[in-house]
Amino acid sequence: MKNICYAQSGGPTAVINESARAVIETAKTFPDKFGKVYAGKHGITGVLKEELIDTSLEDDYSIQALRHTPGAAFGSCRYKLKDIHTNREQYKRLVEVFDAHNIGYFLYNGGGDSQDTAYKVSQICTELGYDIKCIGIPKTIDNDLAFTDCSPGFGSAAKYLATSIREASLDLASMAFNSTQVFILETMGRHTGWLAASTGVAQDEEDRAPHIILLPEVAFEPEKFLAKVKHCVEKFGLCTIVVSEGLKNKSGQHISSSDYKDSFGHSQLGGVAMVIAHLVHKNLGYKYHWAVADYLQRAARHIASLTDLEHAYAVGRAAVEFAAQGKNAIMPTIIRDSSEPYHWHIASAPLGNIANYEKTLPKEYIAEDGFHITDACKEYLKPLIIGECSPRYIHGLPDYARLKQCMVDKKLALATI
Amino acid sequence: MKNICYAQSGGPTAVINESARAVIETAKTFPDKFGKVYAGKHGITGVLKEELIDTSLEDDYSIQALRHTPGAAFGSCRYKLKDIHTNREQYKRLVEVFDAHNIGYFLYNGGGDSQDTAYKVSQICTELGYDIKCIGIPKTIDNDLAFTDCSPGFGSAAKYLATSIREASLDLASMAFNSTQVFILETMGRHTGWLAASTGVAQDEEDRAPHIILLPEVAFEPEKFLAKVKHCVEKFGLCTIVVSEGLKNKSGQHISSSDYKDSFGHSQLGGVAMVIAHLVHKNLGYKYHWAVADYLQRAARHIASLTDLEHAYAVGRAAVEFAAQGKNAIMPTIIRDSSEPYHWHIASAPLGNIANYEKTLPKEYIAEDGFHITDACKEYLKPLIIGECSPRYIHGLPDYARLKQCMVDKKLALATI
Repeated sequence: MKNICYAQSGGPTAVINESARAVIETAKTFPDKFGKVYAGKHGITGVLKEELIDTSLEDDYSIQALRHTPGAAFGSCRYKLKDIHTNREQYKRLVEVFDAHNIGYFLYNGGGDSQDTAYKVSQICTELGYDIKCIGIPKTIDNDLAFTDCSPGFGSAAKYLATSIREASLDLASMAFNSTQVFILETMGRHTGWLAASTGVAQDEEDRAPHIILLPEVAFEPEKFLAKVKHCVEKFGLCTIVVSEGLKNKSGQHISSSDYKDSFGHSQLGGVAMVIAHLVHKNLGYKYHWAVADYLQRAARHIASLTDLEHAYAVGRAAVEFAAQGKNAIMPTIIRDSSEPYHWHIASAPLGNIANYEKTLPKEYIAEDGFHITDACKEYLKPLIIGECSPRYIHGLPDYARLKQCMVDKKLALATI
Repeated sequence: MKNICYAQSGGPTAVINESARAVIETAKTFPDKFGKVYAGKHGITGVLKEELIDTSLEDDYSIQALRHTPGAAFGSCRYKLKDIHTNREQYKRLVEVFDAHNIGYFLYNGGGDSQDTAYKVSQICTELGYDIKCIGIPKTIDNDLAFTDCSPGFGSAAKYLATSIREASLDLASMAFNSTQVFILETMGRHTGWLAASTGVAQDEEDRAPHIILLPEVAFEPEKFLAKVKHCVEKFGLCTIVVSEGLKNKSGQHISSSDYKDSFGHSQLGGVAMVIAHLVHKNLGYKYHWAVADYLQRAARHIASLTDLEHAYAVGRAAVEFAAQGKNAIMPTIIRDSSEPYHWHIASAPLGNIANYEKTLPKEYIAEDGFHITDACKEYLKPLIIGECSPRYIHGLPDYARLKQCMVDKKLALATI
């Protein structure tokens, strides 16, 4: 019986640990197939360093609490394996570690770059003659993975952001008649607008927030934007704006870094929210407030989407089931059967197709004027934020899992890879 | 039977509408005492403009939903009445409006400045011979009102901020070993450090977030701060920092505006989080992320504190009871009987004492090195964030009250005051 090596990669989400829980629990349902589940500490880098956590030594309470805990409980990394022909040594090291710990299955939980790593590991079998089954597990708040209808992590970030803009807009509306009239919320999404777009579901009537969504998919035109802000303030008395950190001008430069410098001449300090705020104030004179959600949006487990949690569990479970079936080089995908009522099932796609492909917001999801999302986009987004699943609170604060992280004894010499 | 005029003032909170609900519901329990409850639209400015909302025309569902709705549902304002001897016309106008609508009670829901307004209105009786009972209702996320153990609104903002820094720290910890090591969260609190301090309750062990809290009460010394950041990163592998927007240097200048200018030479653009982030990066080289909560912290009804909601209701109810007893020029206060178990009761204090006095964080609540809070402060804070009370969710998002806001027919000529 071979052991499983599971690892987390890339930016964490509010629900990535629910996929980890699914892997650990599902592996136990195949007692004749799998030995232990080891977790690479800090993703693939932990595997390379032979830093493996023995998940069987965690107590049941902590494993259960993974469902409620944001962040990457086993540590994550941003580390891209080179091509196997470019750095054969690295792959040999991986095989050494896998072999030393009797690992026959590698499950890698991450986004596009991580699926590329998973794909490369899956090739070891062919290239170096080591029998390993490698399954990717999708995860990214950016929702940019292809071949899957959505990615676990996105729904919860979307629910947090849509709730936040709705709440902030009620605050803004309280005094907009003679005080601040413009509120700007900056979201993540360096390359794709899914996160910014997701706030659009909060707008159930035309006069409600968000009034304007600035997407990386639409080149920013200041004049057109300012006219729209003016229109909103004149019509509704206020204007709420959601802006993606990845917003670019017509030349493809990021707005956040192009125009601003501190007094020492350094650029790239500020967020794009600040730049947009200043643009509005300078040209239209409106008072503004702005917020930058940053890590808060991908760690907000306290307001996670139940649908998202179910997705996260399902892809973790499916990964183990695929491994049990002897499959290699695939990733479980979420397939939507219908939006209303929402039905979905799990399928799979080859890792080679998924790796390094970024799914941007399609044209039919972007409103004609470029400043909002379409009804088709709302229909897509709505099911993903449905349902609540509160963490346990102790003394008024969420009680999050603290793993013991008992390390597996090392068997190899140190290696510099 | 006289009518009640209730109004909301200053920055909204997640629970101010719960005080409104208490006023409306409690007034109904005195059918022989009170007529209708009118709400001034946008605080005292609505009263001056004779813009009164008839709360009796709202349906029961909406009144109930006020418990779950952030923002100021009747509109708010920042408007300070001048002294009665300086602007007698304004007070005459108030009396005209009160008289035209048979108003015998004025309940003003706000912070320090608003209590000052309430106090001035309470003097009308003596000065202009119009019989009005004026009761202040405390509210402020800043927690800077004197004579009350805490102010409704603060506990919920505290719960949001403490939860946010705990969640973000788990995200940070996932990759701190080889990526971002410093995370900075900026809170409100222009003059007092209560909001920044409140995040300190999240730190249940020394290695947990927040590691550093920067308070307006402690002059910022960059070298001392940088040494502390370095110490944290070396000891814990990361450093989470909470900074109040009101942070000042030794000369009393706000850090947020003193050092930074955009490329056009404008200052005061950025948040202090950005300044601190840059300082850390420039001197210590650590990678950073920062977030600015802004309105999100005072509108986050989705994670309100149940204790805070109970306080908000209690002060609203008490205000009406005091009015029924014929009292004038007082504000209900929250008196703490014990911290553990938490017991409290409602008392009152004269408005004249409360107006315009800011309660800063006392010395005994600030750690010796100035970078954190003491155990005494944690003991004070802990009960205020206890308990949860989720809003109702529809289609995955909180369902917030939308009032009809039926206006009372005007009886007077327009006035420019």
